[in-house]
Amino acid sequence: MTPPSLDELERGVLAGDRTLLARAITLVESTRLQDRDEAQELLARIAPKTGGSTRIAISGSPGVGKSTFIEAFGCMLCEAGRRVAVLAVDPASVRGLGSILGDKSRMQELAQHERAYIRPSPSAPTFRGVGRRTRESVLLCEAAGFDVVIVETVGVGQSETMVDDMVDFFLLLMQPGAGDELQGIKRGVLEIADAVVVNKADGELLPFARDAQQQYLAALKYRARKHDGWTPPALLASARERSGLDEVWKSIEAHRNAVDIARRRGDQLVQWWREEIEESIRERFWSKQAVQAETAGLERAVRENRIPPTQAARRLLDL
Amino acid sequence: MTPPSLDELERGVLAGDRTLLARAITLVESTRLQDRDEAQELLARIAPKTGGSTRIAISGSPGVGKSTFIEAFGCMLCEAGRRVAVLAVDPASVRGLGSILGDKSRMQELAQHERAYIRPSPSAPTFRGVGRRTRESVLLCEAAGFDVVIVETVGVGQSETMVDDMVDFFLLLMQPGAGDELQGIKRGVLEIADAVVVNKADGELLPFARDAQQQYLAALKYRARKHDGWTPPALLASARERSGLDEVWKSIEAHRNAVDIARRRGDQLVQWWREEIEESIRERFWSKQAVQAETAGLERAVRENRIPPTQAARRLLDL
Repeated sequence: MTPPSLDELERGVLAGDRTLLARAITLVESTRLQDRDEAQELLARIAPKTGGSTRIAISGSPGVGKSTFIEAFGCMLCEAGRRVAVLAVDPASVRGLGSILGDKSRMQELAQHERAYIRPSPSAPTFRGVGRRTRESVLLCEAAGFDVVIVETVGVGQSETMVDDMVDFFLLLMQPGAGDELQGIKRGVLEIADAVVVNKADGELLPFARDAQQQYLAALKYRARKHDGWTPPALLASARERSGLDEVWKSIEAHRNAVDIARRRGDQLVQWWREEIEESIRERFWSKQAVQAETAGLERAVRENRIPPTQAARRLLDL
Repeated sequence: MTPPSLDELERGVLAGDRTLLARAITLVESTRLQDRDEAQELLARIAPKTGGSTRIAISGSPGVGKSTFIEAFGCMLCEAGRRVAVLAVDPASVRGLGSILGDKSRMQELAQHERAYIRPSPSAPTFRGVGRRTRESVLLCEAAGFDVVIVETVGVGQSETMVDDMVDFFLLLMQPGAGDELQGIKRGVLEIADAVVVNKADGELLPFARDAQQQYLAALKYRARKHDGWTPPALLASARERSGLDEVWKSIEAHRNAVDIARRRGDQLVQWWREEIEESIRERFWSKQAVQAETAGLERAVRENRIPPTQAARRLLDL
């Protein structure tokens, strides 16, 4: 299979061709230097056609029913005429905990929908890499005409903050449960949530879901405000019964009207730009010949406490 | 008050003079460039006298009785003839959640002990700054003859990992409680703990403390091993009744014998060195005249999506 040319990729993505979109995402996921250059060229070309989607992060621990929820939510949006792309940020795969989107049998109904596109999780060599690629994949999906892009993330480590930096709306999915629900949320995650949705609010679990909802509402009230003009709601939903999903979408729309999304995206772009620069200057520094010649010896001296770290740092910096 | 000279500081620290130690720590905490140079000179001079302490992190959420525990534990060590310094890493103060060591009335008994030194929490402008200063303060305390240095941290954000990178032993303090105790621990924190200590194991709470102990033991068994040769214990203690504290110390001593502390410290030094370098190259880059001349304009163009972040990054990097 010869790889498609840049022109073919550009045309294919802009025409909403899912096969070529998949190839384009594979290109931005590539770590080969030559591919990186091509990817940048492709992204520059499609740039005018980006920015048109509602970008939503859906985060939640394993077991809360994240993929069932995304399937039900995505199908509802597709049936309302929207085009929905689902991308996964999966730092878990880095840690060997298994991939969240690796299982192709997930979200079968949504995957078969003609207005949906589901991208399996990349097997990422680095955490930073995941961030850049996902941001770029969001842009490709937008250029391909998807007007809702869902970034799925499992609640591990730094991933939530990173994902929050690339979406308009951060949805934290929880499930009903006995005991102090709040114990289960990492402090930082509640702080970035634009809404908490208690899934599995059906049947025998409904009263427990209502209890959980009350607790989250109270917790959300006391946390520091993320954006002016928006108080995050705690909602009930059932992916199984497909109930409450419309309210979730309405909340996302209300948020769009209440919050300065353009400003949020501007901040995100600036942050992305700064990260790109700082990553590059780090790479450049460590790959300099003079630095590489000294690194091993200095590292040994530092390790053996023969030279203080700060002094050793200065020596390398003065090269 | 004229500031003490470098010679006075050096002599004072090495003589274990607590007033001059405090001045020296103030010097390393200073962000003034001139002070930074002096601080580096002082640290280079005292370097041969450092490394002689057992470095212990004590971490736990507000309410678990951290300061009462540190007071009881520190007093026990002082009474056994040891010299104990307590430093605080307090990212909470950055976030405006209140300082953990700001309250001078804390640990009054320990503070009055002639073999103890308690350093109130610095009001840190940046999180990174806290890390560097605390590492340097540990070295000053060692040069001043303290043979146990306790770094206290409240369980927020990245602070645990950062503190783990500067100590020999990471002690996670918990309290007995109903329900699923493990919900309350952030995943990453259990992974770095060298011991979990259930405080308040006295009176009516004793059976609950025993339950919690069993749960932590089970959880610690399944987590990834931090060091070869050490299985973290879950211990019971009561700061109020001053019981179990000796077992905690014995566990720390057993860990010293079981684990290659020199290697761990070597790794920490290398990491510190790398962080120093990367922070410096970042600072140097952003303070370059050509960069500063372009930054504002480019940032505006990026923010307004007139130029893709990666392209804007290259433009700045090519200067």
